[in-house]
Amino acid sequence: MYDYNEYKALIEEHLLDYIPRIDTKAQMLFESMKYSLTSGGKRLRPVLLLAACDFAGGNIYEALPFACAIEYIHTYSLIHDDLPAMDNDDLRRGNPTNHKVFGEDIAILGGDALLNTAMELMFRDFTYQFDNLEKLRRHCRAGLIIAKAAGVNGMIAGQVVDVENSSKVNLQEYVDFIEENKTGALICAPIIAGLSIAGADESIIDAFNVYARCIGKAFQISDDILDMTGSIEELGKTPGKDSQQEKANFAIVNGIEQAKEELHTLTITAIESIEQFETSDKKFFRDLALRLEQRRA
Amino acid sequence: MYDYNEYKALIEEHLLDYIPRIDTKAQMLFESMKYSLTSGGKRLRPVLLLAACDFAGGNIYEALPFACAIEYIHTYSLIHDDLPAMDNDDLRRGNPTNHKVFGEDIAILGGDALLNTAMELMFRDFTYQFDNLEKLRRHCRAGLIIAKAAGVNGMIAGQVVDVENSSKVNLQEYVDFIEENKTGALICAPIIAGLSIAGADESIIDAFNVYARCIGKAFQISDDILDMTGSIEELGKTPGKDSQQEKANFAIVNGIEQAKEELHTLTITAIESIEQFETSDKKFFRDLALRLEQRRA
Repeated sequence: MYDYNEYKALIEEHLLDYIPRIDTKAQMLFESMKYSLTSGGKRLRPVLLLAACDFAGGNIYEALPFACAIEYIHTYSLIHDDLPAMDNDDLRRGNPTNHKVFGEDIAILGGDALLNTAMELMFRDFTYQFDNLEKLRRHCRAGLIIAKAAGVNGMIAGQVVDVENSSKVNLQEYVDFIEENKTGALICAPIIAGLSIAGADESIIDAFNVYARCIGKAFQISDDILDMTGSIEELGKTPGKDSQQEKANFAIVNGIEQAKEELHTLTITAIESIEQFETSDKKFFRDLALRLEQRRA
Repeated sequence: MYDYNEYKALIEEHLLDYIPRIDTKAQMLFESMKYSLTSGGKRLRPVLLLAACDFAGGNIYEALPFACAIEYIHTYSLIHDDLPAMDNDDLRRGNPTNHKVFGEDIAILGGDALLNTAMELMFRDFTYQFDNLEKLRRHCRAGLIIAKAAGVNGMIAGQVVDVENSSKVNLQEYVDFIEENKTGALICAPIIAGLSIAGADESIIDAFNVYARCIGKAFQISDDILDMTGSIEELGKTPGKDSQQEKANFAIVNGIEQAKEELHTLTITAIESIEQFETSDKKFFRDLALRLEQRRA
C-alpha cells in the first residue's frame, strides 16, 4: 500500500481529468469548479477510498473515478456551505471562498456542476464495465453508497439540521445527528465504497464499518475542537463560527475536555475494530486514526 | 399509448414515492422538496420519457423512476434559478418561490437534495437489474443521457451563459447556446432516455433526435414569446424578466414575428422528422409539437 501523500498525489494529478471539456462560452463554470478543486485540502475522502480499495486487493486506478467523484461532492458541499445564505464564510483553506471570487450565482452553479459531474462520471464508468458483470455490480454498489451518503439521509440532512439548529436548544441528540450525517456519512462512504470496488468480503466490510463510523465522528469532533481553539492561520478559515452563529456542536455542548476524551475513545475504538488484520496491511488506517486525533488543521 | 394527461397523472401519483423517508429532524428538507415538486407544472419532461418508452414498446413502469428523476432535476434547477443571486423570482407557477417559503438556505439545500435524490434513485434502479444484463445496459445508458443533459455540457452550461449574458452584447450565437442547453438539453434527454430504456433501434433514435432538438428549441422560443406577451395570471410567474434583466433571448434579438416564424418552422420540422412512423403511434408526438406551438403558459 502507498502512504497518505502518495494517494493524495495520485488524486491531485487526476482530479481535473474527469471534468468534461466545457464550451468556452461557459468557461467561467470550469474556472469556478477548478478554483475550489485546486485550492488545497487534505483529500481525506478520496484517499480513504483508494486506500480501502488497495487494502482489499483492488486496483486503485479503477477506483480513481469514484475517488474523484467523492471529492467533487465534498467540494460542492463546501462551496454551497460557504454561501452568504448558509454559513456566510469569506475564507476557505486560506483563500477567498468561491462566491467571493466568482459571485454567488456562479458559486451556486459551480457547486451544482460538481455534484452533477460526480454523477455523470460514475454513470460513465458503469457503461465501461459491461464486459464484466461482477465488476459492474461492485461499481454500481459503490456508486449507490456514495449517492446515499451525500443525500437526504446523509450529508444534506446533516446540513439542514445544522442550519435549522441555529439559536435552538443545544440538544445532544441534534448534535449527534449533525456529526453523523453532515461529516460522518461522507467519511464512511469512501471506505465502504473502496472496499466494495475491490470486492472485499462482508467480514472486512463489517470491521471497517465500525472503523469508518468512529473516524467520521472523530473527524467532526476534532473539527469542533479546532473551531474553538485554532487560529485563522492554522485553519485557513475563520475560527469560532459555530459559537458566533449560536450553533451547537459536540465541543460546545460538552466542553473541550470531554470532547478531547471522546475523540480519544473514538480513536482507540477505531484502531481496535481493525485489530484482526495484519500489522503491515492495517498500518495506514491505524496511523490515519492517530493523525486525525492530533490534527491541527 | 396513453394521452398526455394519463402519463401526467401516473407521474404525479408516484412523484413523491421515490424520495427516501427522511429523519424527522430534517423534516424541513422534505417539505421544501415536496413543496416545489407538487406545486403544479406541465410535467413535460417525465411525460416525454414515458411516452418515448411506450412508443418503442417498453414498459412504462420500468421507466417511471427515470421519469421522476428527470422531474427532480428539472425542479431543482427551477429552485436554484429563482434564488435572489440568480433570477430573483418571487413567483413560480402562481405560488411563492421555494426560498420565499423556506428561506434561501433550505431552498439551496432542497435543490441540492433533489439532484442528489435523482442520482440515488437511478443508482438504486441499476442494482435491481443485475439479473438482466441487457436491461441494465439500457438503464445505465438512460442514466448517462440524463446526467449529461443536466450537466456542464447541458443545462448547467446554458444557465451559466444565461447568467453571464446579462448586460452583454446580444449575440445570436450566445442565444442559440442558451436555448439549446438551458432548456433544450433536458427536453431532448427524456425522449432519448425513454427510447433507450425500451431498447429502441438506432433508426428510431436518429429520427427522434431530430424531433427532440426541434421541440426543445421550440419550447424555449415559445417561452421567450410568452415572456414578452403573456400575463402574470397566464404564466404563474412574472413576465418580462428577460428584458428587465437585459438578457438576450431569441424573441428579443430577432423580434416577436421572426420568433413566431421560427417556432412554426421548428414545429413542422419536428413533425416531418417522425413522418415515417404509423399515424396512430406517432399521434402523441405530433399533437404535442402542435400543442407546444400554441401554448399560452
